[in-house]
Amino acid sequence: MRITRRETFNAAHRLFRPEWDDGKNLEVFGKCSNPNWHGHNYVLYVTVEGKVSPETGFVINLKSLSQIIKTFVTDKLDHKNMNLEVDFMAGRLASTENLAIGIWEQLEKPVAEEGARLHCVKVVETEKNYVEYFGPGR
Amino acid sequence: MRITRRETFNAAHRLFRPEWDDGKNLEVFGKCSNPNWHGHNYVLYVTVEGKVSPETGFVINLKSLSQIIKTFVTDKLDHKNMNLEVDFMAGRLASTENLAIGIWEQLEKPVAEEGARLHCVKVVETEKNYVEYFGPGR
Amino acid sequence: MRITRRETFNAAHRLFRPEWDDGKNLEVFGKCSNPNWHGHNYVLYVTVEGKVSPETGFVINLKSLSQIIKTFVTDKLDHKNMNLEVDFMAGRLASTENLAIGIWEQLEKPVAEEGARLHCVKVVETEKNYVEYFGPGR
Amino acid sequence: MRITRRETFNAAHRLFRPEWDDGKNLEVFGKCSNPNWHGHNYVLYVTVEGKVSPETGFVINLKSLSQIIKTFVTDKLDHKNMNLEVDFMAGRLASTENLAIGIWEQLEKPVAEEGARLHCVKVVETEKNYVEYFGPGR
Amino acid sequence: MRITRRETFNAAHRLFRPEWDDGKNLEVFGKCSNPNWHGHNYVLYVTVEGKVSPETGFVINLKSLSQIIKTFVTDKLDHKNMNLEVDFMAGRLASTENLAIGIWEQLEKPVAEEGARLHCVKVVETEKNYVEYFGPGR
Amino acid sequence: MRITRRETFNAAHRLFRPEWDDGKNLEVFGKCSNPNWHGHNYVLYVTVEGKVSPETGFVINLKSLSQIIKTFVTDKLDHKNMNLEVDFMAGRLASTENLAIGIWEQLEKPVAEEGARLHCVKVVETEKNYVEYFGPGR
Repeated sequence: MRITRRETFNAAHRLFRPEWDDGKNLEVFGKCSNPNWHGHNYVLYVTVEGKVSPETGFVINLKSLSQIIKTFVTDKLDHKNMNLEVDFMAGRLASTENLAIGIWEQLEKPVAEEGARLHCVKVVETEKNYVEYFGPGR
Repeated sequence: MRITRRETFNAAHRLFRPEWDDGKNLEVFGKCSNPNWHGHNYVLYVTVEGKVSPETGFVINLKSLSQIIKTFVTDKLDHKNMNLEVDFMAGRLASTENLAIGIWEQLEKPVAEEGARLHCVKVVETEKNYVEYFGPGR
Repeated sequence: MRITRRETFNAAHRLFRPEWDDGKNLEVFGKCSNPNWHGHNYVLYVTVEGKVSPETGFVINLKSLSQIIKTFVTDKLDHKNMNLEVDFMAGRLASTENLAIGIWEQLEKPVAEEGARLHCVKVVETEKNYVEYFGPGR
Repeated sequence: MRITRRETFNAAHRLFRPEWDDGKNLEVFGKCSNPNWHGHNYVLYVTVEGKVSPETGFVINLKSLSQIIKTFVTDKLDHKNMNLEVDFMAGRLASTENLAIGIWEQLEKPVAEEGARLHCVKVVETEKNYVEYFGPGR
Repeated sequence: MRITRRETFNAAHRLFRPEWDDGKNLEVFGKCSNPNWHGHNYVLYVTVEGKVSPETGFVINLKSLSQIIKTFVTDKLDHKNMNLEVDFMAGRLASTENLAIGIWEQLEKPVAEEGARLHCVKVVETEKNYVEYFGPGR
Repeated sequence: MRITRRETFNAAHRLFRPEWDDGKNLEVFGKCSNPNWHGHNYVLYVTVEGKVSPETGFVINLKSLSQIIKTFVTDKLDHKNMNLEVDFMAGRLASTENLAIGIWEQLEKPVAEEGARLHCVKVVETEKNYVEYFGPGR
C-alpha cells in the first residue's frame, strides 16, 4: 500500500556551471541559465509505502508525514533561492533531478522513523515536465 | 499494457475506533473523528492490465469496466455514509487505505472475468492526499 | 481590480425539508437527501474588489484576506456537518446556493474593514457544478 | 462574445519598497520580500471581446492574439526577473496587481488594431490566488 | 445568484468556407482546415441566473438542467461530426464562437421554462482557449 | 531517475473493423464507431529513464526530448485524422492502446540515441480514461 502527500512551494533558481562562461551555459541550459534568476511554483508528491496498521487503518499518519515534509523540505525551499539559500542543495546544480535527490535525502530517515518506507519523490517543475526519484540504486 | 478508468463518488465518513473514547479518537484521528461526520468528493482510478486484443485493439472494453465499477463500487458508495451503509466497509475503519482494499476486493473477480487483471486501485480523498493499492502481498 | 483567494474545506450535509416526508424529500432532492449524510470537498473562491494601493501594490493583503476566510468561514465548516454544526447555516436548507449566501454574510463586513469590497463568493461543490453569489439585490 | 487565450511564463520577483528597511518590508510583504528572490509559474488569461465575423466565425484570429501576447508580454517575462529585466515593470512594485496593469497596457493597443477590444487580463500567481484587471476606470 | 453546470462532449470538426479554395482556407484557418477533420474534447459550462427558491434552496434543480443540456446539446454533439451531423450547426462555420451561439439558441427556451434565465454559455475547445457567449445584443 | 514530458495534440479518429458491418461495429465500439468521425484533445506523457549526468544535472535535455516528440509524434498527429493520415497508425485499429504502441515505436530509438531509455508512453484520451504502455514484453 502506498500513500502520497502533495505539497507546494515557490522558489527561484538558475541552471549554470560556474566553470563555464555565459555562452556555454546558454547553449546547454537555454533561458534557464538567466543570471538574474527565474522561478517556479513547484509541486511535490511524496509517496510512502508500508503496511496498513490494524489499529489506525493508516500506512502513516498524514499529520506526521505533512509535518516531516514541512520541517525537512518545504520550510527550507519556499520563497527561497535554491542556488543560494537551501542547505541540502549547496554545491549541486539546481536541476529538477538534483532537487528530487536532495529532497529524498532529507526525507528518507524521518519517514523510516515513522515505520514506513519512502517510495518516490516526484517534483513537478512546470505543467510540461516532472521527475520521479525512487532512491539510490533503483 | 495498462488502461485506467476514472470515476467519482461523494460520501460521508468518520475515522474512529468505538473502543476508544472521544479524546483518544481526537488525538489520533484529529478532526476526521468528528462524531457528526464529514465527507469528500472521492476520485477513483481503476487500472487494469492485460494484452491488447488483436480484434478490438482493447485491453478491456471500457464500457464493461465502467459498468463493473458502477455496479460493485460507486453505486454502493455514492452519496452514502461509508461507516453505516456500505456492505464491503462493514467492520472496517473507514480510512482511505481500507477503502482502497475494500474496492480492490470488489473489483478483482469481475475484472478477471473480463479477461484482464486488476493492477491498481487509486483513491484520491482530497487534492492533498491519495492512496494506491496493488493487491494483497504486493 | 479584483483579487481572488482560493480555499478548501470538507463537510457533510443533507438536503431535506423536515416538514416533508422521506418520499417527498427523495423526489425533490434525490440521493442528496440521504438521512445518513454524504459530503464533499468544497472549493471556495472569494473575490474582492478595490483600488490598488500605491504603497503596497495590493488591493488587499492576502494574508489578511486568508485569515478572514479562515476565521469566519473555513474553521466553522471544515470537517463539520453543515446541517448540525455551523452557526451561520442554522435554519437554512443546506444547498450550495444557501451556503454561498451564508458565506457572503460572514465575509462582507470584515472585508470592508480591510478597505476593500466583497465582489463574489463562488462555491464549487463537485467538479460538475458551482454557484456564484454577488450579494443581495445584485 | 468573448474569447480567452491562456499562456504561461515563469519568472522571478520580489516584493519590496527600496525606501523601507528589510524589517518593514518583511512585516508588510512577508516571505515575498526575500532579497534573494523567489519565483512562480504564472498563468495568463487574456480575454478579448468583439463581434463574430460572418466570414471567419471568429472574434479574433487566435493565431494573431497568441502572437501579440508572445511579442508584447511573454517573451519579455518568461524566465526573467520581473524587478530587473522587464521594461514595462520598471519603477513598479512587482505585485500581481501591478503586473496585470502592466500587461493590460502592453496589450490594449495591438488587440484594438486587430478589431477587437481587450476585456480582461487575469494573472494566476499560485493555485491559491489570482487577479483580474478590466482596464483603467472600470 | 448564478449556478453553473459542467458537461463534456467529443466531436470532430473542420474550419473552412466552401466558396474558398484549399489554399485560402489554409491561410485563414491553418491546420484547423484539414479536409480529413480533427477533433476535440469540448468542455461546456452552462450558467443560469435566478432567485433562490425558499422551498428548495435552488436556483434551478440541477437534475433538470443536466437533462436539458443532454437532450438539447450533448446528445446531438457527442461523438459526432459538427459540420455534417448537428442540426443546429447546419449552414454555420464550425468555429467555437458559432458553436457557443448555437448552444445558446438550444438552451435559452428550455431553461426559461424551468423559471431561470440563461446567463452564459462557455465552450472550452482546448486547454489554451475558450469562448463565452452571453446572448444576442449583450 | 525518471523524467516526464507532457505534450498535447488534437486528432480525429474512428473505431471500426472494415470486415465488420456497421451493426457489428456499433455493438462492439459504440458511438466511437461513428462513420463521420469524432475527435479528442489527446494528452501525451513520455517518461524517460536514465542516470543523472554529473555535468548537466539532467537525465535527458528536455529541449531534445521535446523536439523528438514533436518530430516523430505530435507533428504527425496534431489536427490529423488518425485512421487516414498518420503513417505509423496505418493498418492499425485506432484504439488508444494501439496509439500508445505506435508512439512507443516512434520514440524508442531516438530516445536511446540521446543516452536514455524510454520507460512509459501514457496517452490520455478523455478525462475519464488513459493507457500506459511500457514496451513489448513488459
